[in-house]
Amino acid sequence: MSKNLTKRSEDYSKWYNELVGNADLAENSGVRGCMVIKPYGYAIWEKMQAALDKMFKETGHENAYFPLFIPKSYFSKEASHIEGFAKECAVVTHYRLKNAEDGSGVIVDPDAKLEEELIVRPTSETIIWDTYRRWIQSYRDLPLLINQWCNVVRWEMRTRLFLRTSEFLWQEGHTAHATKKEAIAEAEQMMEIYATFAEEHMAVPVIKGFKTASERFAGALETYCIEALMQDGKALQAGTSHFLGQNFAKAFDVTFANKEGKKEHVWATSWGVSTRLMGALIMTHSDDNGLVLPPKLAPIQVVIVPIYKGMEQLEEIAEKITPLIKELRAKGISVKFDQRDTHKPGFKFNEYELKGVPIRLAIGQRDLENNTYEVARRDTLTKETVSSDVLVPHIEQLLEHIQENLYLRALDYRDTHITEANSYEELKDILKTKGGFVSAHWDGTIETEAQIKEQTKASIRCIPIDAKEEVGTCILTGKPSAKRVLFAKAY
Amino acid sequence: MSKNLTKRSEDYSKWYNELVGNADLAENSGVRGCMVIKPYGYAIWEKMQAALDKMFKETGHENAYFPLFIPKSYFSKEASHIEGFAKECAVVTHYRLKNAEDGSGVIVDPDAKLEEELIVRPTSETIIWDTYRRWIQSYRDLPLLINQWCNVVRWEMRTRLFLRTSEFLWQEGHTAHATKKEAIAEAEQMMEIYATFAEEHMAVPVIKGFKTASERFAGALETYCIEALMQDGKALQAGTSHFLGQNFAKAFDVTFANKEGKKEHVWATSWGVSTRLMGALIMTHSDDNGLVLPPKLAPIQVVIVPIYKGMEQLEEIAEKITPLIKELRAKGISVKFDQRDTHKPGFKFNEYELKGVPIRLAIGQRDLENNTYEVARRDTLTKETVSSDVLVPHIEQLLEHIQENLYLRALDYRDTHITEANSYEELKDILKTKGGFVSAHWDGTIETEAQIKEQTKASIRCIPIDAKEEVGTCILTGKPSAKRVLFAKAY
Repeated sequence: MSKNLTKRSEDYSKWYNELVGNADLAENSGVRGCMVIKPYGYAIWEKMQAALDKMFKETGHENAYFPLFIPKSYFSKEASHIEGFAKECAVVTHYRLKNAEDGSGVIVDPDAKLEEELIVRPTSETIIWDTYRRWIQSYRDLPLLINQWCNVVRWEMRTRLFLRTSEFLWQEGHTAHATKKEAIAEAEQMMEIYATFAEEHMAVPVIKGFKTASERFAGALETYCIEALMQDGKALQAGTSHFLGQNFAKAFDVTFANKEGKKEHVWATSWGVSTRLMGALIMTHSDDNGLVLPPKLAPIQVVIVPIYKGMEQLEEIAEKITPLIKELRAKGISVKFDQRDTHKPGFKFNEYELKGVPIRLAIGQRDLENNTYEVARRDTLTKETVSSDVLVPHIEQLLEHIQENLYLRALDYRDTHITEANSYEELKDILKTKGGFVSAHWDGTIETEAQIKEQTKASIRCIPIDAKEEVGTCILTGKPSAKRVLFAKAY
Repeated sequence: MSKNLTKRSEDYSKWYNELVGNADLAENSGVRGCMVIKPYGYAIWEKMQAALDKMFKETGHENAYFPLFIPKSYFSKEASHIEGFAKECAVVTHYRLKNAEDGSGVIVDPDAKLEEELIVRPTSETIIWDTYRRWIQSYRDLPLLINQWCNVVRWEMRTRLFLRTSEFLWQEGHTAHATKKEAIAEAEQMMEIYATFAEEHMAVPVIKGFKTASERFAGALETYCIEALMQDGKALQAGTSHFLGQNFAKAFDVTFANKEGKKEHVWATSWGVSTRLMGALIMTHSDDNGLVLPPKLAPIQVVIVPIYKGMEQLEEIAEKITPLIKELRAKGISVKFDQRDTHKPGFKFNEYELKGVPIRLAIGQRDLENNTYEVARRDTLTKETVSSDVLVPHIEQLLEHIQENLYLRALDYRDTHITEANSYEELKDILKTKGGFVSAHWDGTIETEAQIKEQTKASIRCIPIDAKEEVGTCILTGKPSAKRVLFAKAY
């Protein structure tokens, strides 16, 4: 298998598209803007799902499932929500096809027009809060901590695999609380969980922060986010958690009787991450040879490639590695033994490099004689010879090292790409030459934010939660500012 | 919590609806025909998914994800498929809403009409085979063994929770093979896997068989099925596996080069089970007190209800059971300790009976003194007193016994409800008085099958795979018949 990838330095965007295709992660389908997630890509997504689902359940959340379709009228109930969401969406208007009378094929049956159009969910706040009205009567019904894994559709004109597709997979949490304080704590907790997942499983360092008013979720009072930095210096929003106040409770009339028997509106949060995380994972770690996967999310953690002449040598190798495979699997390590005789070792080496398998073991005649394996690391592309006697503990440690190394490498890149700017010229210059996050003072107005975005293509990615108080002046207007925010061009 | 269920003997259908609602499994949504699967119901579905997914992966299948939308023209490519599927479906015609000019709300933007309508997938053969054309070139690419977990939509006029809903969740396997023999073996294997899952996990005995030509999947050459029997004597199709021949390969031009380099069309199967299994599970085991769950699928396997006066006693109980809970969980048994002080023990007993928790432990002051627990079985509603010293192994065994008992009880009911009929009158009489499966001779024609169905409402559920050769005459026409088939009224 020839990798044939465009180099990142030549054309980062082309490199990404080729990598996603060649590494068998996903491809475009015959339906505009909708992707096919291929088995290898889906296996990574399943690992992400499993880890997140566990974290959600450990913090008391339960899964449920709500309808794909939302009546059009539901969107009108929360005024700011419809502006943000119901515009670019898939609209179901009919429920039947029929054969054309002229025999030309199948047509939409005009007699089967829906009385009210249905929207394919772009997000489910409206239908869920319509349901919560039936579920919540008393403070005893709260908190209600529910998550849903599903597909959603937002009509997109320009799409890119994983990063921006009309249909994507995600999870959306929707919680209901008796008090404002509890709801805010929940929204913050979920941002923390997303950050922990990104850093500990994806090995992607993230900055936790607040979105500015103009970047907030439609209907939210506060949007918390985690922001990652890709190798090309562009930021990527990797997850958001929203404090929704009582907006949806009021729009859908969801009240509860408190301990004193008085009716109050419920407080809400929602939070989500999507298959977009796949894009963040790919762009944070991968190189010109292909995908680089952190061991915790790699569908195959260790691949064994035999180097042999003739079936007899292959059998000798197979016999040698059978107990090894068993021992590794017993430790929960996923191992693949690639004994295809249709492909040469060099082809296989390239293939597993392209697919980002963290550790490759090769074993040939000489290794058999010396009781050794050649151990290759995908992250550093280095090789070493390791004795069979210590191989299993070596692999266990190496998987941990690779996981940590990927994180530290990405952290180093990220940290060296947060640059302070103290003037507008400086900001523009950094964006042009170095990229990454630019930390600068901003006067807090929507107008300034919009003007900077129009002129530089950089948006305010977030106001970091740990931004320190610092007296300064806005880089554009010179007005006073109390803390720095992070600007960046973004996906 | 009052159970307040209609008795099965009074109105089975009403009992079912009430049970699904009161046990917090699912409810109707504000969208016609679409259900909300509530957390407790979804937790059961997750257990089903996990068990099935494991069985699929153990037999070499991988998961992937294909688009929700299918262009209308795809359905026209396989002639018989469209007749069966593309008629009652949700049709997306537009991709944008806009504010009405008169300020009356939101309307569909007439300028955003799709050139070609998109169908919300009722099943994914067409879009998947359109994809397989790109994935399959050589015999080396075969077999391709792929499964997808997703939602599908089939517009239904009369819906019932889990049994018949416009949107439902399912898995659909789609495999591609080099030979007819391999594809048939795959279709048969998946029927076997479904049967094993139904019997070993759901404790639902099933009959494996072939569908008659008129009941086959649209586009299939053979449909294998598993048929279960509900307590009201009606059958329920619990899963199907289809041998599709080369129909889809020809419709979507999917060929491969065989070992001799000659191009051939690929052979196909597809197979699926859905949230309909939830209906089968509920109706097979549950009673007038509520849900009865087999331990392997119960979200809570053991519930512990403390019986106490005052916080001191509760603390004493809590202290006593802490190591017990730990020990049970270490053995993979899911345990809930319900120490809510807002509800009395009697209320809790009713609630967990309604929710089908297999084992209930109660512990009060006398038990503390005697070092015992009261152990109640949900399947038999019997109680016994068990010493703490042997409790854990007792529970382990009891969970197995309950699982087995539920299966045997359902098997006994099923087996005593397969009745041979040797005349049309006999068939009609059995259907009217006893219900269940009626084993009778049939002449093999679509006309006879249709006439019997019209007159009795009973369809041919399947031709059992183990039906023995037996010379006979069709109960309706008197024409010769070589084996008996199974008739039943069905869900």
